[in-house]
Amino acid sequence: MALQLVDIDLIRDAAELIRPYAVRTPLLASPWPGLWLKPENLQPIGAFKIRGAVTAISRLDPEVRARGVLAHSSGNHAQAVAFAAAIFGVGAHIVIPDNAPARKIQATVDLGATVELVPVEQRFSRPLELAEETGKAMIPPFDHPDVISGQGTIGLEIAADLPDVATVLVPVSGGGLISGVAAAITALLPNAKVVGVEPELAGDAAESFRAGRRIPWTPAQTARTMADGLRTFSVGELPWAHISTQVHDIITVTEDEIADATRRLLLQARLVAEPSGAVAAAGFLHHGDQLPGGKTVAVLSGGNIDPAVLRALLADA
Amino acid sequence: MALQLVDIDLIRDAAELIRPYAVRTPLLASPWPGLWLKPENLQPIGAFKIRGAVTAISRLDPEVRARGVLAHSSGNHAQAVAFAAAIFGVGAHIVIPDNAPARKIQATVDLGATVELVPVEQRFSRPLELAEETGKAMIPPFDHPDVISGQGTIGLEIAADLPDVATVLVPVSGGGLISGVAAAITALLPNAKVVGVEPELAGDAAESFRAGRRIPWTPAQTARTMADGLRTFSVGELPWAHISTQVHDIITVTEDEIADATRRLLLQARLVAEPSGAVAAAGFLHHGDQLPGGKTVAVLSGGNIDPAVLRALLADA
Repeated sequence: MALQLVDIDLIRDAAELIRPYAVRTPLLASPWPGLWLKPENLQPIGAFKIRGAVTAISRLDPEVRARGVLAHSSGNHAQAVAFAAAIFGVGAHIVIPDNAPARKIQATVDLGATVELVPVEQRFSRPLELAEETGKAMIPPFDHPDVISGQGTIGLEIAADLPDVATVLVPVSGGGLISGVAAAITALLPNAKVVGVEPELAGDAAESFRAGRRIPWTPAQTARTMADGLRTFSVGELPWAHISTQVHDIITVTEDEIADATRRLLLQARLVAEPSGAVAAAGFLHHGDQLPGGKTVAVLSGGNIDPAVLRALLADA
Repeated sequence: MALQLVDIDLIRDAAELIRPYAVRTPLLASPWPGLWLKPENLQPIGAFKIRGAVTAISRLDPEVRARGVLAHSSGNHAQAVAFAAAIFGVGAHIVIPDNAPARKIQATVDLGATVELVPVEQRFSRPLELAEETGKAMIPPFDHPDVISGQGTIGLEIAADLPDVATVLVPVSGGGLISGVAAAITALLPNAKVVGVEPELAGDAAESFRAGRRIPWTPAQTARTMADGLRTFSVGELPWAHISTQVHDIITVTEDEIADATRRLLLQARLVAEPSGAVAAAGFLHHGDQLPGGKTVAVLSGGNIDPAVLRALLADA
């Protein structure tokens, strides 16, 4: 049976749910002619993930929600769920692999979540176990219509701010963000094209797109990219249903191109992007010939960059 | 005769004039409880100055405007006037002291302006000479109701986004920004207090505020601060009329506090501030005991930081 795609009404509903908590980010003209930037690094936790997490937790049955929520993540999703749970005054139990950077663990604890560190191979099984034991709802990072419709509010805002946009560039990892954006843009601006951008070193979605079927990579493969938010080794099932029908193309960018875009966003556009957040801009700056052209928006998905990485990038400037 | 202060109608009119060109910046919850940030670094030229320049050039008689405009500046005002002139398709002739950083000169040229470098002692006289010779209108950096009303749109937006704000912190140099913000806040939220923040090393406005009269410093004195946008050695006459009647207090911050705030804005709030843009946040972070308290907004006035300065700040992180 075909999966039901997220529709525009669900995205519009999400926009109402997140309004009091997420920043309605402006669309910024970039220093590079033809490119506009959607700066999701300005969100409270520094990433778009807050949109999906707030939407998903808002839609939980209040009795279920009152038990608290669960999530697994080593990155921005952990902070987004912790942030959203705090809004509703419920507990967040976040399972984080014990090889995650201390900084990200601390940021999640600082948001009031209970953090459980597990060996990396238990990062998926442990939350399922916990869900069963505690009856807490699991907030998935991307493979869910509530999460996808929350991320889709970005597409809604782009369509409102630049109705003659021709191309929307979106980072791809698990595929929740690009699915939501594609669902909104397809409904509102059917002539605009949504293009995914992925690190070459974590290019499972691009390969899948070419093949017409999901081809997972290994964690060891995707771990090679500096874009630590894009190391998911397979797009989700529901995201794939969107990507395979509503996305125009998926292109890849090299590590040097990601570093260059991160540096130029900082120094020329005055925006702090994490490498994962800079891949869409890298696609514009380095692969214009592969893009449909016209007025183009790059979603700058997040800004949680490690200070050491930032320092290294500037040393090369 | 008492000078006429800028009123809220003039500011509302400015808001209409700038709407197509300036970013309607969001108000961002900062990582520091009780503080919100108004990120003017997101404007096209990386600073709030675009608001005043677009307003002033919009209000010129079209026949006068067609002759082109003049300005003198070594900083963000130069770029703002060049940007605003380009909107109207008229020339901008910018007089810049020949000791200005090459980077800022280049940025002004890149915006299509004609740049004339003059010995630093001619930076005020040369534009007046040019105005007489060419009949071009001079766009002053701060001492004019059009410029002040343009900057005042920031206050309008703060009042709309956080109606229960208690304290608004604003950097002070020539005083155009704080005058506009104070005019808007006084009209819309009479219980809120506007507080100026100045580098201790360029503290002429704070000293003037204590004395109840304008006390200019020397350029050699104000040149000591790293906040290169705040080295004006006296507030303007019309700004003083606002500051002395609508501003609650002016406090000063040290160079270390400015550096610390710039660094924390970058690493914790993910915002690129130039040192001048970080002084208001420095006031909140380091001088809370001198402030009225309550919900507080810091205007982050600009983000045009020299990469070398950024690198040095991160090296200490």
